[in-house]
Amino acid sequence: MANYQKIKGTQDFYDLSAKKLTYIEDFASEVAESYGCKHIITPIFEATEVFVKNVGEDSDVVSKEMYTFLDKGHRSITLRPEGTAAIARSFIENKMYANPGLTKYYYYGPMFRHERPQVGRYREFNQFGIEVYGNASYLLDVDVILSAYNIFNGLGIKNVTIKINSIGNFESRQNYSKALKEYFKDYVETMCDDCKRRINTNPMRILDCKVDKEHVALKNVPCINDYLTLESKEYFENVLRVLDEFKVPYIVDYNLVRGLDYYTDTVFEFIINSDDELNGLALGGGGKYASMISSMCGIDVPGIGFAFGLERISAVMDSQNIWKNILNEKDNVVVMGLDEKSKLESLKVADELRKAGIEAQIDYNSCTMKAQFKLADRLKSKYIVIIGEEERLSEIYTVKNTELKTQEKVEKNKLIDYLRG
Amino acid sequence: MANYQKIKGTQDFYDLSAKKLTYIEDFASEVAESYGCKHIITPIFEATEVFVKNVGEDSDVVSKEMYTFLDKGHRSITLRPEGTAAIARSFIENKMYANPGLTKYYYYGPMFRHERPQVGRYREFNQFGIEVYGNASYLLDVDVILSAYNIFNGLGIKNVTIKINSIGNFESRQNYSKALKEYFKDYVETMCDDCKRRINTNPMRILDCKVDKEHVALKNVPCINDYLTLESKEYFENVLRVLDEFKVPYIVDYNLVRGLDYYTDTVFEFIINSDDELNGLALGGGGKYASMISSMCGIDVPGIGFAFGLERISAVMDSQNIWKNILNEKDNVVVMGLDEKSKLESLKVADELRKAGIEAQIDYNSCTMKAQFKLADRLKSKYIVIIGEEERLSEIYTVKNTELKTQEKVEKNKLIDYLRG
Repeated sequence: MANYQKIKGTQDFYDLSAKKLTYIEDFASEVAESYGCKHIITPIFEATEVFVKNVGEDSDVVSKEMYTFLDKGHRSITLRPEGTAAIARSFIENKMYANPGLTKYYYYGPMFRHERPQVGRYREFNQFGIEVYGNASYLLDVDVILSAYNIFNGLGIKNVTIKINSIGNFESRQNYSKALKEYFKDYVETMCDDCKRRINTNPMRILDCKVDKEHVALKNVPCINDYLTLESKEYFENVLRVLDEFKVPYIVDYNLVRGLDYYTDTVFEFIINSDDELNGLALGGGGKYASMISSMCGIDVPGIGFAFGLERISAVMDSQNIWKNILNEKDNVVVMGLDEKSKLESLKVADELRKAGIEAQIDYNSCTMKAQFKLADRLKSKYIVIIGEEERLSEIYTVKNTELKTQEKVEKNKLIDYLRG
Repeated sequence: MANYQKIKGTQDFYDLSAKKLTYIEDFASEVAESYGCKHIITPIFEATEVFVKNVGEDSDVVSKEMYTFLDKGHRSITLRPEGTAAIARSFIENKMYANPGLTKYYYYGPMFRHERPQVGRYREFNQFGIEVYGNASYLLDVDVILSAYNIFNGLGIKNVTIKINSIGNFESRQNYSKALKEYFKDYVETMCDDCKRRINTNPMRILDCKVDKEHVALKNVPCINDYLTLESKEYFENVLRVLDEFKVPYIVDYNLVRGLDYYTDTVFEFIINSDDELNGLALGGGGKYASMISSMCGIDVPGIGFAFGLERISAVMDSQNIWKNILNEKDNVVVMGLDEKSKLESLKVADELRKAGIEAQIDYNSCTMKAQFKLADRLKSKYIVIIGEEERLSEIYTVKNTELKTQEKVEKNKLIDYLRG
């Protein structure tokens, strides 16, 4: 017999784990809507070039981790590794740039990266994110950062710090890349093969290399902040000034560059800052992307967005013991039928209760008291409605409250009100 | 410049279309929960054999329509074409059969079939479904059918008829297959290539062939009902008897066999029955599968389930003009700042409103009255909070009600209550 197992790096969510996932999705969606964001759902897969061109050919995500394959029409398609590029594709294809003012969307759903298996890392994982198009104001940057921060806070997550940096506009990055190339020249022999390539293609990526984070070359590396143009510098100072006004905890980290090509100016991450094993854990992050849309379609619309991992948020909420205040089981009712006709009656009663939004359960096989009490016991039912011949004929049911250990007679047409308390 | 487009057969849902999808998901989930079902989320892809073995090698879904590819570990994986087999895999792998009593799950999410493009058919489409394991009672069959019927009714969909049939247990199907083989023998020359093969592998599938639904061989074909064992016949009669009790409209259709291998005994579909172009449209369907779990893992647990397409439900609700009563835009508020300092104040006020669940919008660029009134106009904002120097210093804001065309002074700390009405 075949051994049926889920594919490595994928997960089943059920019962509590599914509840947690949808709770976070729903909560974050509500916060996003309070910012005027609307919901967008893009396909699970896209034409491969959507990600190659925008996330960057040289990024780990694109060069190593994508689920890419040919469909039956011999088209190269890729299971989306992230949301931003896919939603940008949708923004362009659906001509959303023609809307006046800002276009604001939130999304959630599975993403796919074929990473090396690690504890807490999955190849299919879930993200929630926001994308805003059509403005380039430091006020918007702050508002988007705050929206994420308010989601974490609203969920009850403690000790979240914002890590922030500016990687500047195109000109700033050119200056910085030149300086990095010059600086890394002396270390090239000791670098990993990827970085040896990156020094020519994209030297900023060397700062993000996962092979040796303690490499000697990283010690006195030039600082991006010294290469920002005046415009980018002022923009970043304004972002920090407004953040100060909101008294949210942030730290500037000049080494924060984020692993994706499309960012410009403001980039940020949300970090757990605590004295336990969660310290330093990144919940998610994002940044501004001034020229992604224009590089895709020639129309100049800046964007900004962030994303965070739902599994990670759920794990932090586990560890901070937050769920117990949120996930309460709803009451349920077992409807008993003590003979075949009463069983049919119990099915009808259950149908009515369910239509009224009350969870009603039935033992489909047995008419004995014993089996049906056992079911109620296992389901921890608050109420048991007992229907025997007498109850069926009189249309007055016996209702047990298992918490108070009381029993009352309730008329059929008053049952719903009674059970609702 | 590359022309970025979604892959043929996939869709973007945004604004209203995304709202409709999640409304149906949420509504159906609530009904399922009233039946005691819990939520399950399985991965987007599975090992290919999960579907080949259970949906059936010879089915159209498996033989022609699957998105199958090798991952980086050279494992054959398939984007799920349906939910039942995947959830059965999860049921087994997570040893849910060890739970006493019934195991009841609902699921929703994208499914993938590389079908020929047709109007209203998508290659990535969304399904909602229920699977119940661990019982084999006609009462359960009826309850599961009713749960789907109640979802359609609860959504406000009119004229839904249940089409129902029994394809019997294993023995019944063997008898019937033998009879079909014998009968179709005379027609084999005129059949399509697939059916020529099916006559030996799985002659029941010929009834489901899409090539020529008017084929002469289908006219006097033997009827499954005449080949049911006594046990299967009685079971089916009981299902119909209990359905009668609920006064739901159903018709018995002996030609209904459903295109998937795993079904036994009760199979059903939900059909729109009307005098317009929707007449005959199938919303979804399902059936009982007595031996799927045991063929997968040797443990004998019967199952029953159904699934329906969200896009199709949404389209029917469009056509029956149902959405207008459901989807109402929530009120929003524009917070104006008339100078740079007031703009910062407006950002803070918006932050407070959003934390209170009120949608608050900001013009990030302009401090002029004109631009900000334009924004409120475009967003059809119910309220406009105006903050100039006077308002900022006095902490008493000017609030315009755009519907009543009135204007009032409201203290800062009473603003949320005021806007909530």
